Amino acid sequence: MEFSSKLLENAVNEMSQLPGVGKRTALRLVLHLLRQPEQQTVLLADALSKVRAEIKFCKSCHNISDKELCEICENPNRNEELICVVEDIRDVMAIENTSSFRGLYHVLGGKISPMDGVGPQDLNITSLVEKVKSGKVNELIFAMSPTMEGDTTNFYIFKQIQDYNVKTSTIARGVAAGNELEYTDEITLGRSIVDRIPFEASLKS
Amino acid sequence: MEFSSKLLENAVNEMSQLPGVGKRTALRLVLHLLRQPEQQTVLLADALSKVRAEIKFCKSCHNISDKELCEICENPNRNEELICVVEDIRDVMAIENTSSFRGLYHVLGGKISPMDGVGPQDLNITSLVEKVKSGKVNELIFAMSPTMEGDTTNFYIFKQIQDYNVKTSTIARGVAAGNELEYTDEITLGRSIVDRIPFEASLKS
Repeated sequence: MEFSSKLLENAVNEMSQLPGVGKRTALRLVLHLLRQPEQQTVLLADALSKVRAEIKFCKSCHNISDKELCEICENPNRNEELICVVEDIRDVMAIENTSSFRGLYHVLGGKISPMDGVGPQDLNITSLVEKVKSGKVNELIFAMSPTMEGDTTNFYIFKQIQDYNVKTSTIARGVAAGNELEYTDEITLGRSIVDRIPFEASLKS
Repeated sequence: MEFSSKLLENAVNEMSQLPGVGKRTALRLVLHLLRQPEQQTVLLADALSKVRAEIKFCKSCHNISDKELCEICENPNRNEELICVVEDIRDVMAIENTSSFRGLYHVLGGKISPMDGVGPQDLNITSLVEKVKSGKVNELIFAMSPTMEGDTTNFYIFKQIQDYNVKTSTIARGVAAGNELEYTDEITLGRSIVDRIPFEASLKS
């Protein structure tokens, strides 16, 4: 791509560093900003610099936060003995949206994935094991995505804490609400039969 | 979407102002930046602020440029009598890539589209008409997209300049290279038969 302006080329190159944004999309976005009032670009650039420079991570659960402790960890009404282990903050947001969990979270910041060069030492696992060792945790809920990497991560953590007195569980895997049975993959459908639950229990949700 | 941080919320909101970027995508992009070295965000924010604040438009053709006159308008080897009228700078880049045009451009900055509130006064049409009036232009090539708005824009400009001594043409419309005839729409296929060209001429490309 040949640009008639170094400034434009530079902006497009930086924009196209973002995941899923190619050169063409980057150009479209930059040209859009050029057509908008200058204020919009200023606000965007400021917000990005600021979030990158000033963002904090909760020292307890590693969730993104503006303070030392995030609002969830600070909330005295939440059950400190129940910890839901998630991959990243988007999972916290997704679970919070359901309003069905009143414990705390522990954000690992990724999942063990040798293919991407991510090992256990790159994740917030040590602090989780410390929490369990302290004896204040009653149950860990593994809420990783049901993929090979998610399962590996769950298993790695499980091995680290199995000698301590803590319950472990994973979120239920089965047929999703609204899904057609005939289009559900075999592994999911098979497990949903093995892991079937009493019908009365299913009426509660 | 509930955020655990105002800074994050702000960055996501600004990011999601970009066309085609929803809240979820914006969150993904911002979280990606948070995982990268701070330098990357600084470079991106700087590049955006800079391109918006310092960008110039060529005073002759309205192409984006770092100088008063863009490189194309400055180039003495290009034919000043032949002007290709395009919608925006991406079209200039696309045509330049083909290396088959050696004239100058005139970037309108959009197309007449009453539905989007864009009228002739919002486009760089006056300066184009002035160029034609000056008598230095031999031929205008309309290279707008073959849509209703593109055709309207072409026709509007044509009405403005038809009394002056200038040739006008539009880029050829027909079946695109590599396209299957049976999947080509009727209008295009019909026109490609009406506007057929001598076979010997087609061998030159």
